[in-house]
Amino acid sequence: MHRTKVKVAEDALDANTTIAQANRADFDRADLAVVNLMSAPGAGKTTLLESVFRDGLGHIKPGVLEGDVQGSMDADRMASLHVPVTQLNTQNGFGGECHLDANMVRSALPSLPLEEIDLLVIENVGNLVCPAEFRVGEDARAMVCSITEGEEKPLKYPLMFRTCDLVLVNKVDLLPHLDFDMDKLLYNLEAVHPGVEHMVVSARTGEGVDGFRDWLTRVADRARTPA
Amino acid sequence: MHRTKVKVAEDALDANTTIAQANRADFDRADLAVVNLMSAPGAGKTTLLESVFRDGLGHIKPGVLEGDVQGSMDADRMASLHVPVTQLNTQNGFGGECHLDANMVRSALPSLPLEEIDLLVIENVGNLVCPAEFRVGEDARAMVCSITEGEEKPLKYPLMFRTCDLVLVNKVDLLPHLDFDMDKLLYNLEAVHPGVEHMVVSARTGEGVDGFRDWLTRVADRARTPA
Repeated sequence: MHRTKVKVAEDALDANTTIAQANRADFDRADLAVVNLMSAPGAGKTTLLESVFRDGLGHIKPGVLEGDVQGSMDADRMASLHVPVTQLNTQNGFGGECHLDANMVRSALPSLPLEEIDLLVIENVGNLVCPAEFRVGEDARAMVCSITEGEEKPLKYPLMFRTCDLVLVNKVDLLPHLDFDMDKLLYNLEAVHPGVEHMVVSARTGEGVDGFRDWLTRVADRARTPA
Repeated sequence: MHRTKVKVAEDALDANTTIAQANRADFDRADLAVVNLMSAPGAGKTTLLESVFRDGLGHIKPGVLEGDVQGSMDADRMASLHVPVTQLNTQNGFGGECHLDANMVRSALPSLPLEEIDLLVIENVGNLVCPAEFRVGEDARAMVCSITEGEEKPLKYPLMFRTCDLVLVNKVDLLPHLDFDMDKLLYNLEAVHPGVEHMVVSARTGEGVDGFRDWLTRVADRARTPA
């Protein structure tokens, strides 16, 4: 007798996982690496990407999916660097969604030239809570933490810091002008996510941006089939 | 024949409105003014409140409800100023809620000395999207916008800027060190919320904080029964 046991999806997060797996399969078919880039509003995600893409990513061809509640300002900035970009707005007529989920990303896939790029960077909606809860089919997660936000953010938004593979500590050009204790931030980061990789950068001056460029290249090379 | 027509609550926001009205009735019974204070993570809500409460609010006795995903660091800072404070954590075992809603605030009311205070400031979870969607029974809404977040935030998170009665443009002590155009921010603010009151402040140096203290006092005096 043939018996099959099917686990019923229990909630929205289970449904999200199912769709994230479908995205993942599509990304694999296109031999594409995907990075989910997250941060609070105004931490510098777009400026950092501009800084990285201005000089290119070597043999890796990047594309960007811009998640925003409304508008296409960030997508316009990417397009001016001649990086293929698709804008995904979460606005639904009221306040809009505060994060991207797997289904929203899935809805954008037909607009992306998946076969022509090697690395897709998904710039999530600026928010330190919900984006961390929704996998979208990514290979790796990076987050940008601006030093202007204070040292205690890892303790206040632990899931975000805990689920990231890389933490970019941004705006360090402002260090001389802030009451900011870098050791305290790194101590708090280590407390919520022991051993996580971090980089100290300034998207504005370009300090440390090479390290992020190398990291993106490594993620892309690791995720893709050797040529 | 007696006929009654009952409109069925259509969604979570309808339910929220019903509970917000119940909160409002309780606040009125306690002759209490309530301000919902919102911002992105690290914009300076707590530092601004510290700056305001350090010198007191004159004849107005304040209390604070601190909304955070996790931890009680902000509540500890308020308590050290001898302001009555209750911590409300939205952590539910996973990522936590990214905003306060009317029901969460309602659950905290029994812990607050409502009869002993004149003004309750609710410090919402750091997020520019969802907190704006949920009324909690407040008299007025204020938001803190840090100049380190860039000039375009009103265009990217319009509902937040549109539903506030006061916008506090914070961290202006950093103006000399940023590529920030104040006129552009104010132009964008006027575009999404024409005529909204704004104040330029630095919670760190105290610049402009008197204006916010006066605003809180006015809100409290207006909302409460004349003595």
